[in-house]
Formats: sequence, structure tokens, C-alpha cells
Amino acid sequence: MGKRSLQEVLDQAGDVVGLLRNSQIGAYIYPVVPSEFTNWRREQKAWRETAVLFDQSHHMVNLFIAGKDALRLLSDTGINSFANFPPGRAKQFVPTSPSGHVIGDGILFHEEQDQLVFVGRAPTANWLLYQAEAGKYDVEVVKDDRSPSRPYGKAVQRRYWRFQIQGPAAWQIIEKINGGSLEAPKFFHMGWLTVAGLRVRTLRHGMAGAPGLELWGPYDSYERVREAILEAGREFGLEPCGSRAYSTNTLESGWIPSPLPAIYTGEELRGYREWLDEDSYEATNALAGSFVSDDIEDYYLNPWELGYGSFVKFDHDFIGRDALEQIDGSSQRKKVTLAWNAEDVGKVLTSILDTEHRGYMFFDLPNANYGSSNYDAVVDAAGHVVGLSLFTGYSANERRVLSLATVDHDIPLGTELRVVWGEPDGGSKKTTVEPHDQVEIRVVVSPAPYSVTARLEYPGGWRRRAAEQ
Amino acid sequence: MGKRSLQEVLDQAGDVVGLLRNSQIGAYIYPVVPSEFTNWRREQKAWRETAVLFDQSHHMVNLFIAGKDALRLLSDTGINSFANFPPGRAKQFVPTSPSGHVIGDGILFHEEQDQLVFVGRAPTANWLLYQAEAGKYDVEVVKDDRSPSRPYGKAVQRRYWRFQIQGPAAWQIIEKINGGSLEAPKFFHMGWLTVAGLRVRTLRHGMAGAPGLELWGPYDSYERVREAILEAGREFGLEPCGSRAYSTNTLESGWIPSPLPAIYTGEELRGYREWLDEDSYEATNALAGSFVSDDIEDYYLNPWELGYGSFVKFDHDFIGRDALEQIDGSSQRKKVTLAWNAEDVGKVLTSILDTEHRGYMFFDLPNANYGSSNYDAVVDAAGHVVGLSLFTGYSANERRVLSLATVDHDIPLGTELRVVWGEPDGGSKKTTVEPHDQVEIRVVVSPAPYSVTARLEYPGGWRRRAAEQ
Repeated sequence: MGKRSLQEVLDQAGDVVGLLRNSQIGAYIYPVVPSEFTNWRREQKAWRETAVLFDQSHHMVNLFIAGKDALRLLSDTGINSFANFPPGRAKQFVPTSPSGHVIGDGILFHEEQDQLVFVGRAPTANWLLYQAEAGKYDVEVVKDDRSPSRPYGKAVQRRYWRFQIQGPAAWQIIEKINGGSLEAPKFFHMGWLTVAGLRVRTLRHGMAGAPGLELWGPYDSYERVREAILEAGREFGLEPCGSRAYSTNTLESGWIPSPLPAIYTGEELRGYREWLDEDSYEATNALAGSFVSDDIEDYYLNPWELGYGSFVKFDHDFIGRDALEQIDGSSQRKKVTLAWNAEDVGKVLTSILDTEHRGYMFFDLPNANYGSSNYDAVVDAAGHVVGLSLFTGYSANERRVLSLATVDHDIPLGTELRVVWGEPDGGSKKTTVEPHDQVEIRVVVSPAPYSVTARLEYPGGWRRRAAEQ
Repeated sequence: MGKRSLQEVLDQAGDVVGLLRNSQIGAYIYPVVPSEFTNWRREQKAWRETAVLFDQSHHMVNLFIAGKDALRLLSDTGINSFANFPPGRAKQFVPTSPSGHVIGDGILFHEEQDQLVFVGRAPTANWLLYQAEAGKYDVEVVKDDRSPSRPYGKAVQRRYWRFQIQGPAAWQIIEKINGGSLEAPKFFHMGWLTVAGLRVRTLRHGMAGAPGLELWGPYDSYERVREAILEAGREFGLEPCGSRAYSTNTLESGWIPSPLPAIYTGEELRGYREWLDEDSYEATNALAGSFVSDDIEDYYLNPWELGYGSFVKFDHDFIGRDALEQIDGSSQRKKVTLAWNAEDVGKVLTSILDTEHRGYMFFDLPNANYGSSNYDAVVDAAGHVVGLSLFTGYSANERRVLSLATVDHDIPLGTELRVVWGEPDGGSKKTTVEPHDQVEIRVVVSPAPYSVTARLEYPGGWRRRAAEQ
């Protein structure tokens, strides 16, 4: 018996929102990398105060795209301009549906002429695979899937290891590895570095204004390179960052990792849904949070709502262009950070000790998200939904709970709103959810990225810069 | 360059307590088994309400002891009686030092004539290995070490898988696997069961009055057996228990997993310390908590203090006998559960949100222990240390923080004492510790096991019964 397609799954379920809200797949897992090397508070502080080694080898899909139509495939599917994207550059790639809603995003590396690699969550990789086939592009596309969420003692194998050295001391460490001073390339430009005798590719990156590098190479040199970096970094306070702290780095840097892929509706996408199968991310994706609508389209987000408005370039044709041309970017919801009220968060944290009531939705630390795509309602004083809170956790640097959200464009920074924490009616049937009551949490609308350092020293942030290429 | 011995490590360090309190090994990890299958609250509730599948395949050492002197080795080193211990039985085995202090404990399986297996933490396994060599016993001892704490994508291999099916529905599930009714053997008696076509060894176990089984077999049938058990248990609400919930099961059942092995002092043990190396559990063990004494012997515990007084049987000679014969068991500290005050715990949980102060020692959920051996001071109203709190965490069944402790023998149940949470002077240099302040938590002295069900339906608990064999 073959697998059902996503379209068949949806047809049988009828209720798409109910299907995803009651997914049995659990929380989105950052696999293989140990949970903590020291402790997650220390690892969070290291990216602000010294340096961290992020291990990104396992949680993302690598999609290798090679052939003479490779760039055309990407240009036809991405909102981004490809006018100035020679080999040796990277960019944050964002494809949209015909309706102009975001399918996903990730980093696209132009490694060599006609050889590109997309790195990110499954929805964009699946979409590119499908478009390559359906559009009869002259490309070879190879998917190197993320590592299993629960390897349970079995060996794991990837094509690449992928690290980032980030933080205020990152460049000193990189220069030590290099054996001498090294001029930082321009942002999102690629280069080379010799580590442990191995010449590896690099991408200029950065956090909070400090230059850093992403590095990658063949998986069989994983340990050797990792140990060499840690050894070089020891005197500078470099800390390996475990999976528990890793996922919360974005709360400070302002990237929203998990929009729901906008592919569940629309006749134009029926072929895609028939191509996706019942085990795909799109079919099993757990939709979590207090925001519940009967209409799955209410979960779709356009580029402006996710902070990608400046990426949209009508210098090329692409799927979704017609729809996006009709949108007035200035009136769209905007990306912000919400700073959660300590007293209200305290009620949530301590409700596990309440022997009289079932308590609130458990708030795990430091990553409090309990689905693959997280949608909490953001309401104003009148109780109207004025935004969606999309990724929530705790930062030991800020000593606060923060969430990344999209809110109505006319809401000024400093406004107090409320996030509804927990699901209605006692909660969905997701495996991450125990019966609970909802509670409203006061939040202050704040800039994204939230980090004071980032705000002061790093105008626009790297994602804007990447888009400006 | 060879490894240093533990004795050399101690001689160089000088300060034994300081060495262990500043160990860089981190918290004690329950490796390989996924952190959560659903969520740790649900998994905790399952052992109380339906049934759980505990996976004990990875966190304990297996020590295989075979040969005509096998039983004699164990009798010479254990406080337990071996008068009635034929093949097919198991018992909780406790060795002591010459000074009569506990070195460790674990389960000893008499699998076949002259073939025994000890399963537990490293200190007892190491001690038995050493005694077998030093005492020139005619035995072959093979150590199958616990799985690596951070396998990091590498394949893991053990000799056995080891499961427990526990909870109110456990026996129904076992009978379904058996394909018909099955009389529960006597407690800690061994048997056989056919699972997935494989005939595997079993040990009658139990939790909270309900009979259960421990099962083990060759590692290459790990997945097949696990899947068969989960499939059989589905209709009864059997939940696989992840590593995050697993370790807290003992808070309800009352076993103290982590006494410090009493081997750091005494000329009689110098040979042992010279045999142990610098990478051993004994040399790297992280000692955590508010109880700090200059004298490592103040951390040693005798059998009565850990609730093993009834195991001590002077029907045989064993290491430590002379010392234990001098002890009046009735005046020793006794094992209790401490039920932590919700308001005080709340202060700890919410101190992460305090932007003015550095806050208290982080309380991780559900297992709050931050070393291999955890020693928090228990003080009375006058501030005198009247006990040691030895294992701390949260139970979603009780909706409370509980800890297992040993307190002065004359302190009645129901007494309010205080546990000092966090280390003095801002904390040690352990990797699990960030700078923090100490705080006193009110606790109520309660029975061990704490579980009301266990107290009512299960007089004495299985560990007492095991000792009574």
C-alpha cells in the first residue's frame, strides 16, 4: 500500500486546522547535538559576552541544486532579486505561493557556477524539489534530509557538518585558527579557511554587530574540525552551544523560524499537495497556540508580516508576484519582539505547583514552543486580535521571556498588549499538550531584534543586508 | 603518558571536597533514550494512571560476574544475606567500605548457577571489579559500561536492552504479550516471557502496589521487542517514558540513586584508589548542593541513613561488618521524602525573571539535580543541619517538588524543616552552576515512598521486600 498524498490526507480529514492542531508529531526537535554542554544559561550568555560554537549540522535540510537552470529555478520561485548574486554569495531565500504567502525561508548558498545549496526547514526544500520536477528545469536536485529527531543510539550521517562561530570574540578566534589576521569579508560573502589542516568553505555572518563565520565541510571531518575550533577558542571563552540554548538565539536576533507553509489551499497548488506525501513536514506539522481559526488561510503570512518586505523585488518574474504587487507593504502587519511581563510569566511558571487547578500550558525553558508552527493570539485592551506571537522563549541575557510576533502596522513600540498563552477548551490533542487553562500575559511591543546591542550597533540586521544585495 | 590514578588526582588536588564540588563533568545524564516521547508530565502521569515502558538500556553499568567464586565475591562485599539466593532471584545489593559506609547499590541478578549480573551505577561495579582482582577470586568479570552521555550521532552498542513495564495496567499488558493469563511470580523472582517471538528473561517488579516486570535480552533485538511491547500496550494507555521523566520516578518510589561512594579516605582503600584512574566516576563525579564540609567523610552515608538498615545481615562476613556491628541502627538518620513548600519553590522558579538580582540556583524540571551526587543541607528552625537532601525534582502526579533525604531519627513525620537551595559563596565552578544566591525552602518531612498509593497499598516497598529474601 503506497503512501497517501497530502491532498488525500486533507480530503479525508476535512478540517485542515484540526488536523494540524492535533498532530501527533510533537514539538520541533533540534536533534543529535547534545542538549547542554555546560548549561543553557551559560551558553546563552556566551553568545552575548564571549563566543559560541553553534552546531547546525543536524536540524536543517540541505538541498543541493546543480545544473544550468539552477539559478532560473530559484529566481522563478523566490521573492528575492537575483540581479547581483554571483558564485561566492549567499542570501536569505523566500519563496511564496501564488497567493503571495510565504512557504518558508532559509539560506541559499551560491557555491559555484550553477551549483547552489539551500539550507533550511523542509517546506522550502520540498517546494523547490517539486518546482524543479514540475517545471522541467534542467537541474539535478539532491535532498540531504535533516537528522532523525530521535536517533536512539543509531549512527547519524549527513553530507556536511555546519558550524557557526559567533559572538564578540568570534573574529579573534577565527584569526587564531587562520594563523594570522584576516580581513572580514562583506556580509554574506563566502570565503575559505583552513581548520585542522582542512580547507573549508565559509560564509561571513555576524551577531550583534560582531563579525562571525559559518563554516561547512564534509561530514567525515566533523569531530576533527569541531575539536580544533574549540581548542583555538578556549582562551577566548568560546562555548559549544547545546541544542537547548541554540533554538532561542533567534529570540535575540529576530528571525522567525516557523511560519506555516502557505500550501494547504488553492487549486493552483493541488498538484503540489498531490506530490507531497502523508509523512511530509506539511502533513505532520504540529500547529500550536492560542490562535485558532477555522480557516487555515488565516495562518498564512506574507513577506511584510515576517519582516521580509524589503526582500520583495519586482525585477523578475516569480510565483506570487502578481499577488504581491497588489499589496501595500506599509499597511501590513510588522515584525516585532514582545517582552513578556515578569509577574504574569511568574503565574505560568508557578502554576505547576497549584494542587487545586490544572494550571496553565507548561512553559518549557528556554524554548517554550510546543509545535512546529506556533501561533499565539496577540490581543489589545479591547480583546481584539491585533497580531500573532510566533516563537517564544526565555533569554538569560535579557532575563526575560521574549517572543517574536507580527502585529498591526500602526501599533507603536512601547504599547502594552496581551498574548493569550495556552490553547482554548483545555487544549488540543497534541502530544506536547496536557489539559490546561488559558491565561493572558501582558507584553510590551519592542523592536526586533530585541537585543540592545543589536539595536545600537547593528542597524537593519543582517537579514536586511542580505536582502539588499 | 599513562593515566593518573584517583589517588594521584587526590594527592595533587589536596582538597577532595573542592575537587569534586568543582568537577567539570556536568550533571548526571540519562543518555540515548529520547528526552521526551510525548511530554514529561504525561509520561509521569502514565506510571501512576496507566502504564509506562521504562527504557533502562543505557544509563547503568552491567557487570557480568561468572565463575565458581562469584557468589563468594558478592557475599564478601555485600551487607545483604546470601543465605537464600538461588539462581532465578535478584536483590538490591549494597557494598560498604571497611568503615561501614555505602559505596553504592544496584540490582544483582542471579541468572544461572555461578553467573550473576550486577546492574547499577559505576561505583559498585568498579568496587566489584577491583575486589575480584585483589581478592584473587576465581571469577571472570566483564564490564559493559553505560552508554556515552553525549553520543553525538555515533552508534551506541550495549550487551543487553533492559525495559520495565510498570503501572496499574502493566500486568494486563504483560498478559496480552504472553497470549493468556500469567501468574505474577513472587517479588524479585525471575522468569521468562515470549515477546515478538523471542524468549526473554524477566524479573518480577512493581510500582505502587501494581505488579510489573523488568525484561532484558540481547541488544540486537532492542527495536523489535520495544515495538512489540508498545503495540501490545497501546489499548491500555502504555506510554514510552523518556529520559527526562524517567529519572524522577524515584521521587515517588523512594530510592536514593546517588550517594557519594565512600572510598576517598582510609589507608585500607589506598590500593583501590591507586587502581581507579583519573577518568573514573569516582574521580570526575560532580558533588553538588548547599551542604559543604571540609571533610569528605561528612558526605559518607551508612546503610541505615539510606533506608537499607534492614538489608544488613550479620549471617556472613563482609567488608564493613566490624564497623556496622558497632552501629545502633535505631539512632541513625532515616530516609524520608521532603515535600517542598509551593510558595518558596515559586520564588526559585520565578527568580530567572528578576532583572535586579542574579537569582537563585536554576531549578530544572522535572529533575533539578545538578551533579552526580547531590547534597543539600536540611536545617531546623535553629539553623542546625539535621539532614541531607539527596535527590530533588518535580512530580506532576503530586504537583509538588519532592526530594529524598536522610534526617535525624527523632524528627517526626509532619515536621517543617528547611532545605538550603543553591551553593554558598555564589556557587562552585561546576559547569551546571551559574552565579546565584542561596535561599531556604520550607519542607515537610513525609514518608518515603511519598506516593499515597504506594504508602497504602505497598507496605514496606519493594526494596524492603527484596532485602527480606
